[in-house]
Amino acid sequence: MIVEKAKNSVKISDKFWGHYQEVVREQVIPYQWEALNDRLPNTAPSHAIENFRIAAGEAEGEFYGMVFQDSDVAKWLEAVAFSLETKPNPDLEKTADEVIELLGRAQGEDGYLNTYYTVKEPEKRWTNVRDNHELYCAGHLIEAAVAYYRATGKDKFLNIMIKYADYIDTVFGPEEDKIKGYPGHQEIELALVKLYDVTGNKKYLNLSKFFIDERGKQPHYFEIEKKERSDSNRFFFNISYAYNQAHKPVREQKEAVGHAVRAVYMYTAMADLAAKTNDPELKKVCETLWENVTRKQMYITGGIGSMVFGEAFSFDYDLPNDLSYTETCASIALVFWANRMLDLDINSQYADIMELALYNGTISGMDLDGKKFFYVNPLEVLPEASQKRGDKRHIKSVRQGWFGCACCPPNLARLIASIGHYIYSQKEKELFVHLYMGNDAKFEIDGKEVLLSQHTNYPWDGNVEIHVSTELQTDFMISLRVPGWARKVIVKINGQLIDHESLMKDGYIRLQRNWKKDDKIELILPMEVERIQANPLVRHNNGKVALHRGPVVYCLEEVDNGKNLHGIFLPRTAELQAEFNPDLLDGVVEIKGLAERVSEKDWGNHLYRRAETNTTPIEIKAIPYYAWCNREPGEMLVWVNEKN
Amino acid sequence: MIVEKAKNSVKISDKFWGHYQEVVREQVIPYQWEALNDRLPNTAPSHAIENFRIAAGEAEGEFYGMVFQDSDVAKWLEAVAFSLETKPNPDLEKTADEVIELLGRAQGEDGYLNTYYTVKEPEKRWTNVRDNHELYCAGHLIEAAVAYYRATGKDKFLNIMIKYADYIDTVFGPEEDKIKGYPGHQEIELALVKLYDVTGNKKYLNLSKFFIDERGKQPHYFEIEKKERSDSNRFFFNISYAYNQAHKPVREQKEAVGHAVRAVYMYTAMADLAAKTNDPELKKVCETLWENVTRKQMYITGGIGSMVFGEAFSFDYDLPNDLSYTETCASIALVFWANRMLDLDINSQYADIMELALYNGTISGMDLDGKKFFYVNPLEVLPEASQKRGDKRHIKSVRQGWFGCACCPPNLARLIASIGHYIYSQKEKELFVHLYMGNDAKFEIDGKEVLLSQHTNYPWDGNVEIHVSTELQTDFMISLRVPGWARKVIVKINGQLIDHESLMKDGYIRLQRNWKKDDKIELILPMEVERIQANPLVRHNNGKVALHRGPVVYCLEEVDNGKNLHGIFLPRTAELQAEFNPDLLDGVVEIKGLAERVSEKDWGNHLYRRAETNTTPIEIKAIPYYAWCNREPGEMLVWVNEKN
Repeated sequence: MIVEKAKNSVKISDKFWGHYQEVVREQVIPYQWEALNDRLPNTAPSHAIENFRIAAGEAEGEFYGMVFQDSDVAKWLEAVAFSLETKPNPDLEKTADEVIELLGRAQGEDGYLNTYYTVKEPEKRWTNVRDNHELYCAGHLIEAAVAYYRATGKDKFLNIMIKYADYIDTVFGPEEDKIKGYPGHQEIELALVKLYDVTGNKKYLNLSKFFIDERGKQPHYFEIEKKERSDSNRFFFNISYAYNQAHKPVREQKEAVGHAVRAVYMYTAMADLAAKTNDPELKKVCETLWENVTRKQMYITGGIGSMVFGEAFSFDYDLPNDLSYTETCASIALVFWANRMLDLDINSQYADIMELALYNGTISGMDLDGKKFFYVNPLEVLPEASQKRGDKRHIKSVRQGWFGCACCPPNLARLIASIGHYIYSQKEKELFVHLYMGNDAKFEIDGKEVLLSQHTNYPWDGNVEIHVSTELQTDFMISLRVPGWARKVIVKINGQLIDHESLMKDGYIRLQRNWKKDDKIELILPMEVERIQANPLVRHNNGKVALHRGPVVYCLEEVDNGKNLHGIFLPRTAELQAEFNPDLLDGVVEIKGLAERVSEKDWGNHLYRRAETNTTPIEIKAIPYYAWCNREPGEMLVWVNEKN
Repeated sequence: MIVEKAKNSVKISDKFWGHYQEVVREQVIPYQWEALNDRLPNTAPSHAIENFRIAAGEAEGEFYGMVFQDSDVAKWLEAVAFSLETKPNPDLEKTADEVIELLGRAQGEDGYLNTYYTVKEPEKRWTNVRDNHELYCAGHLIEAAVAYYRATGKDKFLNIMIKYADYIDTVFGPEEDKIKGYPGHQEIELALVKLYDVTGNKKYLNLSKFFIDERGKQPHYFEIEKKERSDSNRFFFNISYAYNQAHKPVREQKEAVGHAVRAVYMYTAMADLAAKTNDPELKKVCETLWENVTRKQMYITGGIGSMVFGEAFSFDYDLPNDLSYTETCASIALVFWANRMLDLDINSQYADIMELALYNGTISGMDLDGKKFFYVNPLEVLPEASQKRGDKRHIKSVRQGWFGCACCPPNLARLIASIGHYIYSQKEKELFVHLYMGNDAKFEIDGKEVLLSQHTNYPWDGNVEIHVSTELQTDFMISLRVPGWARKVIVKINGQLIDHESLMKDGYIRLQRNWKKDDKIELILPMEVERIQANPLVRHNNGKVALHRGPVVYCLEEVDNGKNLHGIFLPRTAELQAEFNPDLLDGVVEIKGLAERVSEKDWGNHLYRRAETNTTPIEIKAIPYYAWCNREPGEMLVWVNEKN
C-alpha cells in the first residue's frame, strides 16, 4: 500500500537557514509542545492534546478550543517530522510516537478522526463543511503523516490517515450516495495529493480532483447543507462565497479573491493536480491565477492579502502598506504554490517569487529568537496608529507571544524545518537548482548517486560554489536559476568561464555535461542595492521606492532613523552603500546613504502652509525587512518617499 | 419670561450662498417634510411625526426609529425657522405651527417631551442618559424653539420648551435629590445657553454649566446609572468614556478625543459658558482644545474626525485621506464652535477656520441640487476601494439619497438657512465683519440704525464692497477680517487708499470713523492659486500639495483628469491658471496647469521594477472640493503628488 521510499535527502549547512532551523528545533517545537499540553503560564489553554485524550475515552471533560484545534497537533507533528529528517532526536521522536498512538486510540472504528465532532457533536459530522474545518483538519493530519513516514520510515501514523482518508472517500464523491461537498477551508486537496504520492493509490488523487472540480458549482453545496441543517444565518463574509473561492467553478476563476490562505492552498493543489493528472486546462487556470496574484496583488515582500476583512485579497493593484493583512501563513502558502508551479514548468518566475517570500514575508513572521510572532506583516507601521485606530488593530507594532488562533507559528516551523525540500527539483536526468543556500544533497540519476554540495554566504552575497560528486562520470544536466534581480552574472566550471547567455532557458542556465567527481561550479550573482518602483497603478506607492538587495527587501526603522519616517526623502541619485555588519541583528548587510529629512522645526504650530522646501541631510540606515522589530519598537517603513 | 427681541437681521443677497439657501428652501425642507411623514417611496420610513401623534394619544401604534428620532423634527423646525427669517412663507409657517401644536399635545403634564420614552418605556426615563439621547433631543428642540421665536416672534414653541427645560432642571443638578448625570451626546448644553439668551433666566445657564462641570467626574455617573439599571454589557466604544469626552473632567481635557460631533458641540457650549459666566479657566480649556483640533487634527477642508470607529478623532497628525470620517455634521459643529470662539476673542484664526469649514467640509456634504448627501467627506476616493474594502465602506463614492440616521442633511439645512448669523458680530460700538458675502444687514449702535450692504463675487474673487448707511453721522468701528490666505490686501474708503497695516489687530483691520450715509469701503483680497503643504508630521501628505484659492480647497476628479490620479505629479514650478467657468458646476473658478503623469504603458505586466522616470505631460484641471461628485462618479483626490 505504501510505495514511496524516503526522499532524496538534503542537509542544510547554511548559516542563515541553519540558524532558523535551530531556532525551530530548540525553541518553537518545544514551546509549542508545552502549549499543546496547556503548560504555559499566562497563555490561554490550547487543550489540543487533551481533546484527543477525551476523544480516546482516556480523560473526562469537554472539547475546548477552536473547531480546528486538531490542526495544531497536526502542524506540530509535521514540523517534528521535518526536524527529525534534518536532525535526529530520539526523545522528540518518542514523544511524537506517543501522540501518534493517542491519535490512533482517538480514531473511530470507521476511521473518523476529529475531536470536535467526536466529543461535542457526534451526530453532526459533515453537516457544516463550510465553516467547521473537518476536512481541513484531516488535510493537516494527512500532511503530517506523510512527512512523518518520509522522515522516520514508520508507517503507524500514515496508516491511521490512510484509514481516515479511505473513510472520507466513502463519504464524499461523485457517486449518487455520496456528499457532493467540499471543504470551506481548502487544505485536504493538497494533502490528498501527497497521500497519493506516497501510496500510489489513485483514489486519493481522484478525491482531491473531485473536491476541486465540485467547488462553486450550482446548485451550491454550501446552500444545500445550510438548508439541511435549517441554518438561516447570513454567511458572514458574503453571499457569493468568494471568501471561500466557491463563488464560481474553479476552472472559471481568473482573479484571486477571498481568504488568501484558503485561496493559495487551493491553487497549490490545483497545480499538483494539473501536473499529476496532465490537465492542461487546469494548468492554464493556475497560470492565470499566478499571474493575477504575483503581478497585481502581491506586496514587494511576497506578502498577500491586502485587507483584514476576510483576511483576504481585495482587488488588482490595491496594496495599502499600512492596512495590509499579509498573513505569515499566506506567504508560506505562496511558497508551496510556487514550488508546485515549478513542477508544472521550470521557469524562474516561480522560483523568484518563492525566494522572495522565503527571505521576506514568511520569516518576518518570527523574531530572531523564535519566541514571538507576527500574524500580520505590514509594510508600514506607526505604533500609535495600531493602538488608537480601530481600522489598524490587526497591525501589531510588536510581535506577540502565542496566539489564540495559533496557525502562523507552527506553519512557519514546518516551512523552515523543511526548507531543504525547496532548493532542488529533478526531472529524470535534469537537476534544477532553485535556491542558493549551504547544503549537501543526494540524488539518484540513472541509478547512480550524485552529490551536490552548495557553499554560499547567501543572502548577503551572491557567490555560490557547488561541488559536484558522482560515483562514476555521469551525463546529466544541472540547471542554475538566475534570479530576476541579478545582473552581470558570471558562471565558471572548474575555474573556467562559461558563456552562460547561450545556455539560458526560462531563467535557468542549463549545464549539460559529463559530470565527474570534484567538479566545481562557481556562480557569481552580484548583489547591488536597487531602488524598486511599483507599477503606477499601485496608488499607494507613487513617488516612492523600496530598497532591495539580492533577494532581500529592506526597510527603515525608527531606532536607526528617528521618528516620522515619512519625512525622509531619498534622492534618486544618492549613493547607497551596502555593508555586512556582524553585530547587527545576528549579522546582516545594512544599507546606508545620504537622504533628506523635511525640517519639522520651522513648522512651529502650523498644520498647513504655502509650499516650501526645507530639508536637512540625514544619513539613513536600512535593514532587512524580515528582521525588523528585533530591537526597540517603533515606526517601520518599506516604501520610502523619493526626491526626484 | 422672554426678554430678547428679534435679532439684528441679515438678508443674504449673495449668489453663492443665495443658491444654497434656495436649494434648502425649495428642495431640502420640503423633501425632509415628506420624509418625516413617511411619504417618500423607496426610503425607510422615518415615523418621526407619527411618533409624536402616538405620544399625543392621537394615533395607535408603536414607537419606530432611532432613539433620537425626535431630533429630526427639531432640526427640521429649526431649519424652517431660519428659512422663514430670510424668506417668509405663510404655508410653511402654518405647517410648522401645526407641528408645534402637536408637540404641545405630546408633552407630558410635567413638561416631559420625548416620544421614545413616552410611547415605549414610560417607566424608564433618565435611566440611560449615556446612550439614549433624551437630553440630546431636548437640546435640539430647545434650539429650534429659540430659532422659531426669533424668526416669527411666536412664543408657543418657546413656552413648550421652557416648560420642558424647567422640568429637566428639577431632575438634574447639584442638589441632593437630583441626578448628577449629563448627556451621552452633548447638545443640550449649547441649547440651554440659547434659552438663557432669549429668556434671561440664569437657571438655564447654570444647568448647562452643571452638565459641563459634572462630566467625567469620579465616581463616574455612566457607571452609576449602568449599575442601577443592572446593565452588564461592555460599553461598545471603550471603557474610559473618551468616546463621550467623559473620560476625565472637562477642564482637564487638553486633546480632542472621541466622537467628533459630541466633542465639538460640547466645546461650543464651553466657549459660550466661558464668555457668559466670565470663566477664564474654561476659556483657556477652549483655547487649548481649539489649538489641538485646528492645528493637529483637522483636514485641510475643515473636516474633522479621522476614523470611522466611533466617528471619532484619532490622534495628533493622524489624517489619512482615504480613511477619514470627516462627517458633515462635525464640520458644521466646527462652524458653531468658531462662531463662539469669536465671542470670546476677536481673532481671525477663528473666522479663518469658520470660513474654511463653510466653503469646503460642510457644503461638500450636499450636491448642488440639494438632493443627495455625504455623511462622510473623504479627501481621496477610489470607487473600487469603497465597494471592495471592508475598512472603506463608510467612504461612499457617490452621495446618497436620505439616510436611516438622517443627521447630516437637516443639520446642513439649518446651517445654510442661518448663514447670515455668522457674517458679523457686534460688541457695543464695534462691528466685526468675519465673512464676505453679499448681504444687507441692520445693526443698532448707540440707539441709531446702521445699515451695511456687502457686494462681492466671493469666493471667486476677493473684491468686496461694503456700503455703510447710518441715519446720522455716527462714530463707531468697522473691523474687517483679513483672511489668513490673503496677501497684498488693499483697503479703500470712499475711493481713498487706507494704510491698513497700522490698523491691523488680531487679523482685523479696525476702521474707527465717524461713519455717514453712503460711505463706501472697498476691500481687495487678491486670490491666488496656492500650493499648500501639510506639516511633515502628517505622514500621509509628505511629498504632496493641495491647491487652494481664496477660501476654497481644490481637488482633482477622474472626469477631468483620467483614472489613477495618484499617477499625476505636479511640478513645484508649474504655472497654474485660475479661470471662472460659468458652465461648470453652476459656475466655479477652475484651476488648470501642466503636470506630469507617470507612464503606465511601458510597465506592461510588471508589478515592481528598477526605478525609472518616464512621464508624459498632462494638463490637469482642479475643481472646488465642495463641488466634487456632481458629474460622472469616479476617483477624487485633494492631496496631489508633487515633483520637487
